[in-house]
Amino acid sequence: MSDLPLAIGIDFGGTSVKTGVLYRGNIIDEAERINTQIYEEAPPLIHRIHEVIGELRKKHPGIEAVGVGMPGFVDFPTGMVHQLTNVKGWKKIYLKRELHKLTNLPVTVENDANCMAYAEWKRGAGRGLKHLVAITLGTGVGGGIVIDGRMVRGANYAAGEVGQTSIDYTGPMGAYGNRGSLEDYIGNQQITDMAFKAYAAAGIDRLAGECSPLKLTMAALKGDEIAIRIWERVAEKLATALMNCCWLLNPEALIIGGGVAKAGDLLFGPLTKSLHSQLSDAFKDNLKILPARFGNEAGIVGAGTLALEQAGFDVDDH
Amino acid sequence: MSDLPLAIGIDFGGTSVKTGVLYRGNIIDEAERINTQIYEEAPPLIHRIHEVIGELRKKHPGIEAVGVGMPGFVDFPTGMVHQLTNVKGWKKIYLKRELHKLTNLPVTVENDANCMAYAEWKRGAGRGLKHLVAITLGTGVGGGIVIDGRMVRGANYAAGEVGQTSIDYTGPMGAYGNRGSLEDYIGNQQITDMAFKAYAAAGIDRLAGECSPLKLTMAALKGDEIAIRIWERVAEKLATALMNCCWLLNPEALIIGGGVAKAGDLLFGPLTKSLHSQLSDAFKDNLKILPARFGNEAGIVGAGTLALEQAGFDVDDH
Repeated sequence: MSDLPLAIGIDFGGTSVKTGVLYRGNIIDEAERINTQIYEEAPPLIHRIHEVIGELRKKHPGIEAVGVGMPGFVDFPTGMVHQLTNVKGWKKIYLKRELHKLTNLPVTVENDANCMAYAEWKRGAGRGLKHLVAITLGTGVGGGIVIDGRMVRGANYAAGEVGQTSIDYTGPMGAYGNRGSLEDYIGNQQITDMAFKAYAAAGIDRLAGECSPLKLTMAALKGDEIAIRIWERVAEKLATALMNCCWLLNPEALIIGGGVAKAGDLLFGPLTKSLHSQLSDAFKDNLKILPARFGNEAGIVGAGTLALEQAGFDVDDH
Repeated sequence: MSDLPLAIGIDFGGTSVKTGVLYRGNIIDEAERINTQIYEEAPPLIHRIHEVIGELRKKHPGIEAVGVGMPGFVDFPTGMVHQLTNVKGWKKIYLKRELHKLTNLPVTVENDANCMAYAEWKRGAGRGLKHLVAITLGTGVGGGIVIDGRMVRGANYAAGEVGQTSIDYTGPMGAYGNRGSLEDYIGNQQITDMAFKAYAAAGIDRLAGECSPLKLTMAALKGDEIAIRIWERVAEKLATALMNCCWLLNPEALIIGGGVAKAGDLLFGPLTKSLHSQLSDAFKDNLKILPARFGNEAGIVGAGTLALEQAGFDVDDH
């Protein structure tokens, strides 16, 4: 195994940092998670990440690259991360440069949704495709785009924000002043609220905790009409944003991951129907609407694989 | 001049075919227009186009390539055009192959909105940029996208349909079953209808002909509050679709052409304000919102220039 490239993938989440060792797209080892909430400044947190990398390298000598997936905007070429919600002292940190200085390994830093899209493209549902839009549905809605066999990053490396696109120009104002953003309709909390209200309107008492996407899926599978209808309403909204991606980019595949996507056919059924009813032939013929292969491991797989590619390895082979 | 490449650009419109000779992006000669409406079959129309090309080649011996911009979908690699609204017998015509056979010149066939985007990118407002979205506002709303210095064509060469993207998931059903498409709000006819109703609601009698985009611009420039407000409403809708392009693709520039864009500041003022209020810094910093350079000549310039590029000439130099 030592003659094949290993990589370290780091998934920098809101509250914890997960670090894994990748071999041909599989996580073969994972370190203890780092709790980000005990750090108020960047340097000690980066030092702790360096320690964890060191421990994994001792066990796995063949590591050739380190990839980090970050929540929020990353200046891709320099690996500079502007800020982190949960680490107050984190301001304009050149993470790529800092980690390289400490590890002497090639380091790549990328937005987490782009890592997820990259994982699906190179190792998951989108393998072998040239044009795809991948989105991840959870607390928020993230996305990543591949066109002509290349990740779309855009002028300031900020592209792929499907969750911020509008599905209603008169809709409520979102986090960035944008009206009717998809995320404001089908984030976890918004789905829960939608269900809570729908049950209340039907005279059914439910605790908010019983209206989570997971609970709704379980209820819908048992035939609960209100829960089934909630998934149809989620699908309708999701279909609008994804249809827009299709008209603009004419992708071969839409790849849908994240917790909400676990609703399976409850979501994918009405989603497919709505998409097919709103696209002309050139856009819907051969269009694949696929569940993501990866779940929580997408960040580690994507970041590590991308890091190998950036370090000059042919990741389509390994 | 004969040692520099000339090209023929053909703009295949709904009712007429315009043919011009291009030199460094300028139309230096134009042939008599061909009226498509007298043709019921493709072969005699293609024969007539061949004759016109022959006349121009006699006058300009240095022509190296022929480019054709077509209304509707084109299979870009084969230059196959599925159908034409105004030529009944036109079904699955391999126009590239047919014209090459007749002229023995390299021929390129492309969708007209992509030709317009290409003209703006290589010769117009978007010169030197790597990421842009160009749209043309008229009877319909067309678009073309450049990412990482390449035209985005997508899996079936159908990408760039900004006019078909939705700005309201509950909106009226459009030509392809798609709800709330931009084109159904801000096409020429829709703007005219919007104005007609606004005047009527204010108790002002106007003929529909007095509510055309051009008449509205003239009225607004004289201080007509209703006309000014119509342009604000058009801008709000256009801003939503273009904002979505920004969140998805993070372009350097939005280029806006076509008749409706002649409203100038009446449209660009509220459009810019709305876009800036709905995008985060990484998307709006340095974002250029530009009027197109080309008007009716965009099709000829784009088709001819693209044909030169496809024939192996460096169009950034010529």
